Amino acid sequence: MARGRFISLEGGEGVGKSTQLTALAEALQGRGLQLLVTREPGGSPGAEAIRKLLLEGEDTRWNPRAEALLFAAARADHVEKTILPALERGEWVLSDRFLDSSLAYQGEAGGLGIEAVRALHRFGSSDFLPDRTLVLVLDEAEGAVRARARDGNLGDRIGSRPPSYHAAVDAGFRAIATNEPDRVKLIDASGPPATVTARLLYALGDLLP
Amino acid sequence: MARGRFISLEGGEGVGKSTQLTALAEALQGRGLQLLVTREPGGSPGAEAIRKLLLEGEDTRWNPRAEALLFAAARADHVEKTILPALERGEWVLSDRFLDSSLAYQGEAGGLGIEAVRALHRFGSSDFLPDRTLVLVLDEAEGAVRARARDGNLGDRIGSRPPSYHAAVDAGFRAIATNEPDRVKLIDASGPPATVTARLLYALGDLLP
Ligand SMILES: Nc1ncnc2c1ncn2[C@@H]1O[C@H](COP(=O)(O)OP(=O)(O)O)[C@@H](O)[C@H]1O
Ligand SMILES: Nc1ncnc2c1ncn2[C@@H]1O[C@H](COP(=O)(O)OP(=O)(O)O)[C@@H](O)[C@H]1O
Ligand SMILES: [Mg+2]
Ligand SMILES: [Mg+2]
Repeated sequence: MARGRFISLEGGEGVGKSTQLTALAEALQGRGLQLLVTREPGGSPGAEAIRKLLLEGEDTRWNPRAEALLFAAARADHVEKTILPALERGEWVLSDRFLDSSLAYQGEAGGLGIEAVRALHRFGSSDFLPDRTLVLVLDEAEGAVRARARDGNLGDRIGSRPPSYHAAVDAGFRAIATNEPDRVKLIDASGPPATVTARLLYALGDLLP
Repeated sequence: MARGRFISLEGGEGVGKSTQLTALAEALQGRGLQLLVTREPGGSPGAEAIRKLLLEGEDTRWNPRAEALLFAAARADHVEKTILPALERGEWVLSDRFLDSSLAYQGEAGGLGIEAVRALHRFGSSDFLPDRTLVLVLDEAEGAVRARARDGNLGDRIGSRPPSYHAAVDAGFRAIATNEPDRVKLIDASGPPATVTARLLYALGDLLP
């Protein structure tokens, strides 16, 4: 049996990742693919326990380096216990966030450096990468409109950081896409959901059976 | 005010670390030092939450790399929130285990390599080191006697690993002492507790006021 493909959906808060994950899952199932849908931080029992430590409590609960180490630990567990077994069973895996969120949030916005955070992934998960990473991006004006619409809805430790942090996250995602153009595609997240889904499917065209 | 000193007590399971920590704390307080006594994994609220994840559950709950990342995350929090503030207040800090346990357990016995585990400490804690590390060691015969005496008392995820693992831990501690002879001293842990305490105090002689 052919090994499945691993696709990650990335982007800032409220850009439409979870909405699109559901739509993309349906579209791929419609093509006869067996799908496993997962998320980060989390996606395995151990990683979900770490997720609770990461997202609860005060913003200062963990310093940026402890935070990056916890994300890398959770990811090592997620890859080993959930993602690799599914791929080996021939399933496709769709994840709501993966490594690139750590690179953009902790590496770029948190000031640790994208390369230093990537080194933790090399240690924890042998640098295991998605076959394709789809980064949803909104231009600033539309991002601000959606941000206002969802205000009060970002209550976790990381989502509630200031706008300058989230602007740096966005810059981080764009830098990663520039550095790894084959793996990472920037996808315009504006317009109605079905339009965005069509863009995502187009960016997976070369991988689909 | 002079900065305090940071001393770690290391060694395998049941070698007498906790017994000696108490005795050493009393001896140092008797010399007028302000002391903070702490332990790893743990030593700060965040690190104690990680400790629960590390020591509970099945031995296979975490793979060795996730385990090493969790230890490094806990240590980063412990250093920042507990150890450095105490040293800056002029207190001495005595810790029951610290970095060298990770190097010996995860690096040497777990097969990740001492250097790879040290790199996580460099990332998480800027390679912050004790002023002196005292490693309690028993020769094999006496270690086996104490091990039999305490059987059934090693129930956590790591203590209950097989004898070959614990022999490798011991080899790891000896290698570290060879590589860093100024910081790390091997201390004979045989004989009555008061004799061991006297050896520990002797090995701190150059640091005492
Ligand atoms: N294409 C879209 N146009 C307008 N609103 C959208 C669109 N996609 C998602 N939303 C809305 O934006 C909010 C955030 O979407 P969500 O999928 O939860 O984002 P994320 O998972 O990236 O945080 C939700 O209220 C969702 O209904
Ligand atoms: N010097 C010693 N001689 C004999 N037994 C000892 C000595 N020091 C400690 N013990 C006993 O060995 C056991 C383990 O000691 P403990 O201090 O808990 O070790 P650790 O903290 O290194 O696991 C305890 O039952 C303790 O009373
Ligand atoms: Mg979401
Ligand atoms: Mg003890």
